[in-house]
Amino acid sequence: MLKLYYAPATCALASHIALQEAGAAYATELIDFKKNQQNSPEYLKINPKGRVPSLITDRGILTETPAMLAFIAQSFPKARLAPLDDAFAFAQVQSFNSYLCSTVHVAHAHKMRGPRWATEETSFADMKRMVPKTVAACFALIERDMLKGPWVMGEVYTICDPYLFTLAQWLEGDSVDLSALPKVAAHRKRMAERPAVREVLGQERAAA
Amino acid sequence: MLKLYYAPATCALASHIALQEAGAAYATELIDFKKNQQNSPEYLKINPKGRVPSLITDRGILTETPAMLAFIAQSFPKARLAPLDDAFAFAQVQSFNSYLCSTVHVAHAHKMRGPRWATEETSFADMKRMVPKTVAACFALIERDMLKGPWVMGEVYTICDPYLFTLAQWLEGDSVDLSALPKVAAHRKRMAERPAVREVLGQERAAA
Repeated sequence: MLKLYYAPATCALASHIALQEAGAAYATELIDFKKNQQNSPEYLKINPKGRVPSLITDRGILTETPAMLAFIAQSFPKARLAPLDDAFAFAQVQSFNSYLCSTVHVAHAHKMRGPRWATEETSFADMKRMVPKTVAACFALIERDMLKGPWVMGEVYTICDPYLFTLAQWLEGDSVDLSALPKVAAHRKRMAERPAVREVLGQERAAA
Repeated sequence: MLKLYYAPATCALASHIALQEAGAAYATELIDFKKNQQNSPEYLKINPKGRVPSLITDRGILTETPAMLAFIAQSFPKARLAPLDDAFAFAQVQSFNSYLCSTVHVAHAHKMRGPRWATEETSFADMKRMVPKTVAACFALIERDMLKGPWVMGEVYTICDPYLFTLAQWLEGDSVDLSALPKVAAHRKRMAERPAVREVLGQERAAA
């Protein structure tokens, strides 16, 4: 059985929702960031990067959200979570998810994770001040050019949707004005109404 | 015909090599960063993110290196650039490439691209000082846990290899000690001897 290591309010939510949407049999295990469990010797054996999510499969361990999402889509083809038979359409899905991991998540991370890239308190404060602007710019591009609606790729729900939903959870915390992002806001609302999303958010709240 | 927009010494090199390895018919167009051509109105119509690479296909435009690499592998299956019939092995390829785009490239980018995430000169200098350490840490993990050898995924060459080779070009510029990375150094040498890599580096040098 698949097992997802996650922490609440992290990008692990995307894979958690995808597993639920896929109808997969899976277990979860919470990694407690308050106890720095992600850097414990036990967890570093699972993911030497000291991050969540990690997915235990019968073939081995997978990390990195875009790879896990595509793996879930390919492993449960009946759930139709990605256009698996169309290389161009699949690449569009991957391009969107790659932008989220390499640019949008990274922009957000400069609020709390400054010590990854600098050492001085003044630098951390400077980075933090810029987050509302950089995250807003990323989401403005998503709003204008990427989110086709009603789902990210248009009429069909894909693995892009739980990932966008996950990062869009952080907008208020990053002081981004949601009223400038009506399509993103509507997408978030649409996602929150899906049974799989309600189930997963309920699970994560109960475990936190 | 496919067309790759690139700039020399950027991550576009990975897709350029993959196209050559695939035996694809493709054209290239150089985007001149010195003239800030990546932010010209013409180029922003191709890629509104103002970055390279972009790949023009007969179906539309693709951006983001991991997505483009998987697209090239899927579009030219005879070149066997990824394990297309094995979801887990394909996810391992994607996980590696996702780590390169979201963590390794981002660590490197803090040397010259500080203004993406901060505003003060002191912050830029602080970020720059940390780059040798953060990039070295990324590559130490690659050396220890990820690069199986002789190729990234072991005996079989995949789309991970040109991407790793591309980012490994930047190690000296980032003041990372290559003598601590014997497997990465041997991989870079092995890559540099491949006819496709020599051809592409020659093309990029001639155009620069």
